[in-house]
Amino acid sequence: MEGGLQRALGRNLKAWREQRGISQETLAHELGYHRTYLGAVERGERNLSLRSVEKLADQLGVEPLELLN
Amino acid sequence: MEGGLQRALGRNLKAWREQRGISQETLAHELGYHRTYLGAVERGERNLSLRSVEKLADQLGVEPLELLN
Repeated sequence: MEGGLQRALGRNLKAWREQRGISQETLAHELGYHRTYLGAVERGERNLSLRSVEKLADQLGVEPLELLN
Repeated sequence: MEGGLQRALGRNLKAWREQRGISQETLAHELGYHRTYLGAVERGERNLSLRSVEKLADQLGVEPLELLN
C-alpha cells in the first residue's frame, strides 16, 4: 500500500521516542531536525530516502529495517 | 552500515530478474527505467526514496520489505 513504509517509519519513530519519554522538541534537537519536520516524519508524511532512514536508525541505535517493519 | 539498504535492494532486484531469465534491457523497459539506471540500482548505487521502493515492489509484485531485506 502506497506510503506504507513511511507510515511504519513514523509509527516506529514515535514509539521509540515515547518509550523513552522524550519530547518531539528534544529528539528533533538531538537529531538535528526542525521540530515540525520530526512531527511530519512521525505522521508518515515524509518520503525519506534509504540513506536518510539509515542515518536516522544509526542515530537511534536501531537497525534500519526495525524502523520500516 | 551505510548504503546497506540500497545494496540489499540491488541484490534482491537482480535476483528477481535473473530468476525469471529477464535481461536488464527488458526489465528496464517494462519498469519505465533507462537501462543504465536499472544497472545502477542493481549495483546498489542509487539512493531511492521509500515511495520509489514501494512503486518498484508493486511493479514486481512483491512486498517492499522483501526488496530491502
